[in-house]
Amino acid sequence: MEDGKMKMEIPTNVTIKGILGILMASIDEDKKERLISLGMGDPTAFSCFTTTDIAQNAVVQTLESHKFNGYSPTVGLPQTRKAISEYLSTSLPYKLSSDDVYVTAGCTQAIEVAISILARPNANILVPKPGFPIYELCAAFRNVEIRHFDLIPDKGWEVDLDSVDRLIDHNTVAMVIINPGNPCGNVYSYQHLKKIAETAKRHEILIVADEVYGHLAFGENPFVPMGVFGSMVPVITLGSLSKRWIVPGWRLGWFVTTDPKGIFKNSKNVERLKKYFDICGGPATFIEAAVPHILENTEEVFFTRTLGILKQSSDLCFKKIKEIPCLTCPTKPQGAMSVMVKLNVSLLKDISDDVDFCFKLAKEESVILLPGLTVGLKNWVRITFAAEPSSLEEALNRVKSFYQRHSH
Amino acid sequence: MEDGKMKMEIPTNVTIKGILGILMASIDEDKKERLISLGMGDPTAFSCFTTTDIAQNAVVQTLESHKFNGYSPTVGLPQTRKAISEYLSTSLPYKLSSDDVYVTAGCTQAIEVAISILARPNANILVPKPGFPIYELCAAFRNVEIRHFDLIPDKGWEVDLDSVDRLIDHNTVAMVIINPGNPCGNVYSYQHLKKIAETAKRHEILIVADEVYGHLAFGENPFVPMGVFGSMVPVITLGSLSKRWIVPGWRLGWFVTTDPKGIFKNSKNVERLKKYFDICGGPATFIEAAVPHILENTEEVFFTRTLGILKQSSDLCFKKIKEIPCLTCPTKPQGAMSVMVKLNVSLLKDISDDVDFCFKLAKEESVILLPGLTVGLKNWVRITFAAEPSSLEEALNRVKSFYQRHSH
Repeated sequence: MEDGKMKMEIPTNVTIKGILGILMASIDEDKKERLISLGMGDPTAFSCFTTTDIAQNAVVQTLESHKFNGYSPTVGLPQTRKAISEYLSTSLPYKLSSDDVYVTAGCTQAIEVAISILARPNANILVPKPGFPIYELCAAFRNVEIRHFDLIPDKGWEVDLDSVDRLIDHNTVAMVIINPGNPCGNVYSYQHLKKIAETAKRHEILIVADEVYGHLAFGENPFVPMGVFGSMVPVITLGSLSKRWIVPGWRLGWFVTTDPKGIFKNSKNVERLKKYFDICGGPATFIEAAVPHILENTEEVFFTRTLGILKQSSDLCFKKIKEIPCLTCPTKPQGAMSVMVKLNVSLLKDISDDVDFCFKLAKEESVILLPGLTVGLKNWVRITFAAEPSSLEEALNRVKSFYQRHSH
Repeated sequence: MEDGKMKMEIPTNVTIKGILGILMASIDEDKKERLISLGMGDPTAFSCFTTTDIAQNAVVQTLESHKFNGYSPTVGLPQTRKAISEYLSTSLPYKLSSDDVYVTAGCTQAIEVAISILARPNANILVPKPGFPIYELCAAFRNVEIRHFDLIPDKGWEVDLDSVDRLIDHNTVAMVIINPGNPCGNVYSYQHLKKIAETAKRHEILIVADEVYGHLAFGENPFVPMGVFGSMVPVITLGSLSKRWIVPGWRLGWFVTTDPKGIFKNSKNVERLKKYFDICGGPATFIEAAVPHILENTEEVFFTRTLGILKQSSDLCFKKIKEIPCLTCPTKPQGAMSVMVKLNVSLLKDISDDVDFCFKLAKEESVILLPGLTVGLKNWVRITFAAEPSSLEEALNRVKSFYQRHSH
């Protein structure tokens, strides 16, 4: 049975959680106390990142009301869809309707729905390099081809639109834009987003806008949602409460058709989407039910405070990296929670590449960084700066000692 | 763009929620106050079905602890996997390990994972007729062929094993058994389950045991989990808190390899499963974190009370159906929350079939029943008896009046 009917293909992609697990396991037990992980985009591990009481109490209230223990419609509760459509519409030049919104179990499920709903024989989807590996893994399970376009480190990780032009063919159905950017910490300008939209329009493909870090912009460029260009080209907007409200474990996300001209959301696609949601296990009904209150009542001061900490920690991160000669940060991060730094292995006597660097660093210093290979760039490293500033400083001091010991 | 790149196939399957939505919409606004729906398996609509405070308080506590707002491992929290493995092991002749358990967003996601993980070119899966349409819908999205074996109404909806033998070929990878049964309300005997296991073993296919209604047995046969035969044939057990704890909206389910000989759970399949879970949005971390407390501390009296109400309402349902000449119930329900009744349209002067029956009934009497066509049996009707006994009685009285008006 093992060799016959039970045999199945395994996608070869490495996942972030997979590699972080292996890194973690490589640290000796007696050194785990010292562990500082700057590997994952989950700030809840650090006490300075805590959600607002408004959100938490809203969920306790819907749970205790006994009204939301039953099934919700698979596309989401009507009031939740309405609240999300209104929340997103405030940043758009047109008004979304409740029907544009499909509530998902976090942004992860929104990605899975996007890839699955776009899958068809021979289809390909363009994703950024560096990027977020769940797109590749999901595409592998759905038999969708992935093609990588480059982001340009020295131009604030802007999309290399020439590489996009070269990659697109008649089987290309969509391109993915992650803004604010994971893993790069970029925030695209209005002008650059417009150019991306024009490219997609010219090739008649749609844009999947991964805005899970939406509004987490603390640098020069304000956050502009891709949906602003929805009249030019159909945009599928993916987002969630996870990052802005610091509750990734609540699994409350959305898949939204920001497509005012109805090019993508024709009746057939809407029918197919509705059916697809029938096979998805969505978020908990009582969490969904709390969303309208959360979106309407969260105070600006909570957002400002989070942005303040992120700005402070990203500045600190940028400054400390400058003290480590083997690491170069091409662009100061402007948003999201992580930054990509280039690793110069030629300055190190016994490190072969980024994976080797991260493994030896974990073993010797109990500091976890993510090898760039995981996100598509060999000999780069992703550092999550969404951490307690004191931990971040300590971790980067250790990286510096590590460099000093291993340099020529 | 509409006819080219954006064109996608839509599975033609009807879903239960889809048809119930259309039935609901067909009722005039001024008659909606009278509405009694016996269409869906969600008892939370009726106040006699309420979860236990132990479960609810456990979730409030994990939420308020601030410890579970972050991501959980995609396969589930270790303590949750352990608690579920121990809970299920109490009914098995061997002990499951934590690694056997994958925590899902309700049983719906567990079904989706099962179908997706078994999908490969030309594969087919056997499902019961009547059955639960999500299997078909999911298989359509995953390009898996579905073949239907019959359940025999006059033999307590037992599996027609001859039809199974006829359907299986070298591309058959699994058969699905739903026990306690939805839509039929059957509970299979140990002997019958053993025969099913022997059949699967002979053909070298695995069994997907949908036990979302596990332990909800109130008739002659006790509930026996399929995993009891796991040493004979690999079983994938699907379940959730939804029905036994009356919290379908919490989206807390499990996908479990009840496969002590490790035939299915070889290292390749386990690796593939782990990767698949990386693309799934699972349940909320704080709900997961409450599961150990819920499984260990729910008092027997809560379960007994639920079974008592289900027994009472199913008896009432069975009795009332006997008063309606055009409906016949071949077997008294023994478990789960619904029963299938045969519709004799020849006794009705202006009803063409089960769909017509349900639509006219909804319009005239504001009572919703599910057309059997939805679950695979034309001219049958599914009645959910998990309802307030008074509502159930009132609804079936109205069905009787409806019959009287429409009979020859």
